[in-house]
Amino acid sequence: MNRKIIGRVLGFLLLLECLFLFPSVIVCALHGEGRAMTAILATMVIAAAAGGALCLLCRKADRHFYAREGFLITGLGWVVLSAVGALPFVFSGEIPHYIDALFEVVSGFTTTGASILPEVESMSKGLLFWRSFTHWLGGMGILVFLLAIVPMGKGGYSVHILRAESPGPSVGKLVPKLRQTAAILYGIYVALTVLDVLFLLAGGMSLFDSLCTAFGTAGTGGFGVKNDSMASYSPYLQGVCTVFMTLFGINFSVYFLLLTRQFKQVLKSEELWVYLSLILGSTIIVTLNTVAQYPGFRDAFHHAAFTVASIMTTTGFSTVNFDLWPQLSRSILVVLMVLGACAGSTGGGIKTARLILIFRSLRAQVRQMLRPRSVNLVQVEGRTVPDETIRGVYAYLSAYCVIAILSVLVLALDNLPMETNLTGMLACLNNIGPGLQLVGPTSNFSVFSSLSKGVLMLDMLFGRLEIFPLLALFSPAAWKKTM
Amino acid sequence: MNRKIIGRVLGFLLLLECLFLFPSVIVCALHGEGRAMTAILATMVIAAAAGGALCLLCRKADRHFYAREGFLITGLGWVVLSAVGALPFVFSGEIPHYIDALFEVVSGFTTTGASILPEVESMSKGLLFWRSFTHWLGGMGILVFLLAIVPMGKGGYSVHILRAESPGPSVGKLVPKLRQTAAILYGIYVALTVLDVLFLLAGGMSLFDSLCTAFGTAGTGGFGVKNDSMASYSPYLQGVCTVFMTLFGINFSVYFLLLTRQFKQVLKSEELWVYLSLILGSTIIVTLNTVAQYPGFRDAFHHAAFTVASIMTTTGFSTVNFDLWPQLSRSILVVLMVLGACAGSTGGGIKTARLILIFRSLRAQVRQMLRPRSVNLVQVEGRTVPDETIRGVYAYLSAYCVIAILSVLVLALDNLPMETNLTGMLACLNNIGPGLQLVGPTSNFSVFSSLSKGVLMLDMLFGRLEIFPLLALFSPAAWKKTM
Repeated sequence: MNRKIIGRVLGFLLLLECLFLFPSVIVCALHGEGRAMTAILATMVIAAAAGGALCLLCRKADRHFYAREGFLITGLGWVVLSAVGALPFVFSGEIPHYIDALFEVVSGFTTTGASILPEVESMSKGLLFWRSFTHWLGGMGILVFLLAIVPMGKGGYSVHILRAESPGPSVGKLVPKLRQTAAILYGIYVALTVLDVLFLLAGGMSLFDSLCTAFGTAGTGGFGVKNDSMASYSPYLQGVCTVFMTLFGINFSVYFLLLTRQFKQVLKSEELWVYLSLILGSTIIVTLNTVAQYPGFRDAFHHAAFTVASIMTTTGFSTVNFDLWPQLSRSILVVLMVLGACAGSTGGGIKTARLILIFRSLRAQVRQMLRPRSVNLVQVEGRTVPDETIRGVYAYLSAYCVIAILSVLVLALDNLPMETNLTGMLACLNNIGPGLQLVGPTSNFSVFSSLSKGVLMLDMLFGRLEIFPLLALFSPAAWKKTM
Repeated sequence: MNRKIIGRVLGFLLLLECLFLFPSVIVCALHGEGRAMTAILATMVIAAAAGGALCLLCRKADRHFYAREGFLITGLGWVVLSAVGALPFVFSGEIPHYIDALFEVVSGFTTTGASILPEVESMSKGLLFWRSFTHWLGGMGILVFLLAIVPMGKGGYSVHILRAESPGPSVGKLVPKLRQTAAILYGIYVALTVLDVLFLLAGGMSLFDSLCTAFGTAGTGGFGVKNDSMASYSPYLQGVCTVFMTLFGINFSVYFLLLTRQFKQVLKSEELWVYLSLILGSTIIVTLNTVAQYPGFRDAFHHAAFTVASIMTTTGFSTVNFDLWPQLSRSILVVLMVLGACAGSTGGGIKTARLILIFRSLRAQVRQMLRPRSVNLVQVEGRTVPDETIRGVYAYLSAYCVIAILSVLVLALDNLPMETNLTGMLACLNNIGPGLQLVGPTSNFSVFSSLSKGVLMLDMLFGRLEIFPLLALFSPAAWKKTM
């Protein structure tokens, strides 16, 4: 194992986090929040010192790294970033307990949006800004950012980092050079975010609220700056959110294809059409199911579309208390929680691409059973999917089930209702935010014990890193000195 | 497709069902239940007429059949048996609605034990006997019985029937001849059942109760003849049940190995040890978790052991209302519902053998990711598991998840609580019987609408036939005339 390269990249990451904390200092200064500013500055000093020390210690690193180092860097990187990112909340006293602050920041970086705060409007603007900014950083992946600006490894092995940090069963390069791919992805991300901010500003939202809301939307995170999430904003602003949440749930390679005018390829994207059909279909069913609770069909459709987009893209904003909806709508939301957005987007969940692969390969399996000597290949978008990819998807689903079951068992120790445990776990494992019942959109995760919060944090990281990079940290094989 | 052989086997099955209905006639006669007797006799006439007609019509069947015919025979066979087996309940007026009667009989044949009856003690003894007897027939598989007595196909293709009807990821032959294997399995089954009856009689249980209880135990079904399931029986009788439920959850090949004195092979059976460890471990945790609800540790252990064995083997008898237990114990029960018993037993669920394979192959997957060029084989009991088997297990798990999700969505239309829908679905899909909340051990499934009952029946059949033979019925490829 190349320990030095791991140390060096972690050092870079901490220096980067120090930089990323700076905008929050400006927000504090603008709002005259001295205590929060001191807390953030202190954290920046710690991050800079630790990062600088690591970089110096590991400056003679051999720049070659392999799959193992890629996974370890990703797993450890996210843990370290969260551990340091939680400090401002503790230093400022706004979230006194470290475990709660850590929960909040892990929830931020993993773009979950689950919160232990009963209300957010009393928080300082600077820390609210940091809280939302973690969504934006976590959405596209902070290591991908590093890849985009720093030439990291020789020999092309840094694709393992991109693979480990990006959502979906198979990550391709958009262009031959990995660094350019990362830069293009971030370019699209920034452009869409700016567009979102402009549309929100046009609707009369304040700059601060617009920025924070756009960060939460772009990262499909869901931290809001109001106690009622998005309920008190105008229908126009809620509509803008619906559209942009849906957009950020689409595979970013679709935008790359659009930019390079490969429209035929876009039309052929099965994942895109399945994703949009699921959103539309669910919205229609939920609208019909909830119409009795609203003044008219239009209102019902408005809230159904917002909620379906919010849950399916795993953002987690809310305009209404969907926990009060009829059972069919609630159950649809739970299923959408698990499905999640497209691969290669900022959203969480199982991902539409995996869903398609699972259905295709089940069909092939049935055919194979009926005619044992026939050859049944799994095809998506006209291309044969390699066995390795299918096996990876199956393994992902199995690991997902195992983690879900073990998590619910530990959560059960708190003796809360089963639906709370189940939907709370799903909300974290799929990086959504709100669940149902005691962790519904008008409640928060402070009902859980510290042990449960720890489990839920792990679930959030498992969800964001798609299980295996984090699972690798628990494997003895990852830590052996020899290959 | 060889339609004639399918028709011929279905005909045989109906004749066999006619025979199997006969013991219930004797029970009716002994208890002077004229109306029930007439109903059963009428059903026997129908089964004999339909079966005879089918056999005659298809008497010139080519005896060769392939995988496809094997799956279709199994899927259709179970549907036909249930459809006819429900008639006595309707004819006698004891369950007036056909859909309810069908639910009860599907629940019987699939060894689920979920009931729509609010109370059973007012039923005629003859029909209670038939209800419990369906468990016994369904437990080992009625087609396997046919295999054991009738030489069915030429060319060894009838292994597909054994495969389709027997639980577990891979079914081996115990001895080279398939017919002998089936006969040995049934021999062990009968012997264990007789032993169970003797132990129950020794505890002072009446012969009728002993027989019905033993049928429910042997098939891991769970239909009882008392309104309170097993609660009013003595601790000795409950203890006998605990032991025999556990025994019937063990892979029957273990008993074959014991009979042929291959003790070393038994000790090497990983599935056996994982299964027993899961039962013991769960019992200990549940005991500690529920001890406050009982007079002492001994009582808590007694009920914990009974309930854990009942749920893990997917039998579904109850001595206490475990729905009132603390959340940890309830959650453990839900997990055990999904896990189920050993492959090659009469129990349902995912099966311990699949669990072991999933964990092993996840470990291999992580190692493969860490070292992409290494070779990681999945081994169980010292032998390398073929890729095909692993893929089959993964496909099974995926199909299981898809069916579970779709079922819960349809159940949600009834607007019952989510926990009721979820545990009711799991109780049916894993062939257990009672769920939690509104379908808990003191309640029944009559709360559901007819549509939901239909879905739950499908779930029971999916669970008993391990999904694919039934799924094959929905595949157009199964019905094409040409191969």
